Amino acid sequence: MKITVVGVGLLGGSLALLAKEKGIASKIIGVDINPLHAERALALGIADEMLPLEQAVKNTDLVVLATSVNILVKQLPQVLDLIGDHTIVMDLGSTKELICQVADSHPKRNQYVASHPIAGTENSGPDAAFPGLLKKKIMIICDKEKSSKHALETVVSLSKQFEMRLSFMHAAEHDRHLAYVSHLSHISSFALGITVLDKEKDEKSIFEMAGSGFSSTVRLAKSSPEMWAPIFTQNKENISTALGAYIRRLQAFKDIIDSNDETRSKELMHHANEIRRVLLGIENPSQSS
Amino acid sequence: MKITVVGVGLLGGSLALLAKEKGIASKIIGVDINPLHAERALALGIADEMLPLEQAVKNTDLVVLATSVNILVKQLPQVLDLIGDHTIVMDLGSTKELICQVADSHPKRNQYVASHPIAGTENSGPDAAFPGLLKKKIMIICDKEKSSKHALETVVSLSKQFEMRLSFMHAAEHDRHLAYVSHLSHISSFALGITVLDKEKDEKSIFEMAGSGFSSTVRLAKSSPEMWAPIFTQNKENISTALGAYIRRLQAFKDIIDSNDETRSKELMHHANEIRRVLLGIENPSQSS
Repeated sequence: MKITVVGVGLLGGSLALLAKEKGIASKIIGVDINPLHAERALALGIADEMLPLEQAVKNTDLVVLATSVNILVKQLPQVLDLIGDHTIVMDLGSTKELICQVADSHPKRNQYVASHPIAGTENSGPDAAFPGLLKKKIMIICDKEKSSKHALETVVSLSKQFEMRLSFMHAAEHDRHLAYVSHLSHISSFALGITVLDKEKDEKSIFEMAGSGFSSTVRLAKSSPEMWAPIFTQNKENISTALGAYIRRLQAFKDIIDSNDETRSKELMHHANEIRRVLLGIENPSQSS
Repeated sequence: MKITVVGVGLLGGSLALLAKEKGIASKIIGVDINPLHAERALALGIADEMLPLEQAVKNTDLVVLATSVNILVKQLPQVLDLIGDHTIVMDLGSTKELICQVADSHPKRNQYVASHPIAGTENSGPDAAFPGLLKKKIMIICDKEKSSKHALETVVSLSKQFEMRLSFMHAAEHDRHLAYVSHLSHISSFALGITVLDKEKDEKSIFEMAGSGFSSTVRLAKSSPEMWAPIFTQNKENISTALGAYIRRLQAFKDIIDSNDETRSKELMHHANEIRRVLLGIENPSQSS
């Protein structure tokens, strides 16, 4: 299969490398407006050839859109306009509702499959890509009834060959859930990083005392602002609700600490400990329900 | 050297195992009020013998207090009362100001070294202990001028044999810093866990979509409530300040998202990205300044 990857960064690059490793892609055509990324993609073997978008999406079997979600909403109708009848388009965007809305009004909607692999690291760009990133992760496919049987089967088959687990849902549900289990984590981490960096101005050696716990909670603060700002905008309503709930929880925790209420503090933490069940499911998916 | 470890859990147990591995301890005497922990400590080779506190701290070279900080403030003067002139006492508590205050009024203050190894995991109990936990981590020693030369040298030498890096500071500075780089991370994680667990009541499958980013930010929510509630109480003032700053940062971030201000959102995230420098220092201490 000939695959065109638009945006040869962490996700797009990793998908390309895995498609090659698995022998799925006979050829990878890359598209990237950043000439440095284009050059690295060729050097790293992510793409066999780099082409401008218009040429790259013609006469290909599958177009994978792996750009930021603000670009995606413009690029998707443009790509659907350009492709022939036998080309399938999928995207890897972290929001789905707005992107699906944009696609819904297009006459070639059924050649498109709205997808989101739950995979990533705090790094970005082609040099951050590695074939293992997608393996054994979850591939969410949204509004599957709007894709043709052939288009859906192509993306399902690709995901299975990538050893991914499939999950189907509506775009609105996707965005509501992701606000809690992904977008909120990123904001909590960005804000934590800034809070401690601000304190460092007065306390120069503060980070000498930081250990693995701090490192773990603040890791996502390294993530790309260019990628995340549009996600926050597109999923604003859900994120605002989730973030509001989180702030209220923190304020309640603060009040409990301020009032020396250790009994209530322990109750809250015991409740939080239930997350063990969830983390066991993430780390060992076969053991989860 | 004969070492008595009071509290054979994650930290105390790991210290005992490392002291044996390094050939530092000729004998480890364990103390634990939990009979199941006492039994596991013997079975796991953490302690050679379990004794009641009064017997265990007599005729030993070093007493390591590895209990929760609420127990420590009562236990430390009690242990100083019991020991002979040649026994040294150190603690591993995550707060230092109150514990040092308690010790300061004791006639044997100079036989005590206030210490805190920056090491831990989200697990607890003897079964969570492993000799590598302390290796190459930071050992903070507070108010060193209040310890005798012999006591200080013993703890410094022990830390060096454990391949730990030493950091000296005042107890008040320790607690102020730890509020930001450790205690705040735990609260942010506990509150995040609760926020998403609450949402799960309406959205059963929410955790199916959680990935490694969520897992990383919420890992500390597995931590022991019995250990952490007293830490929050003892370091209440500093934690309240840090948590207040964090809540204000989150609220500001929420306002920016609500108002679609992507420019300001990106600025904030670029600022947060500076945490890369800090994390590089934690993960590769030799490369940090």
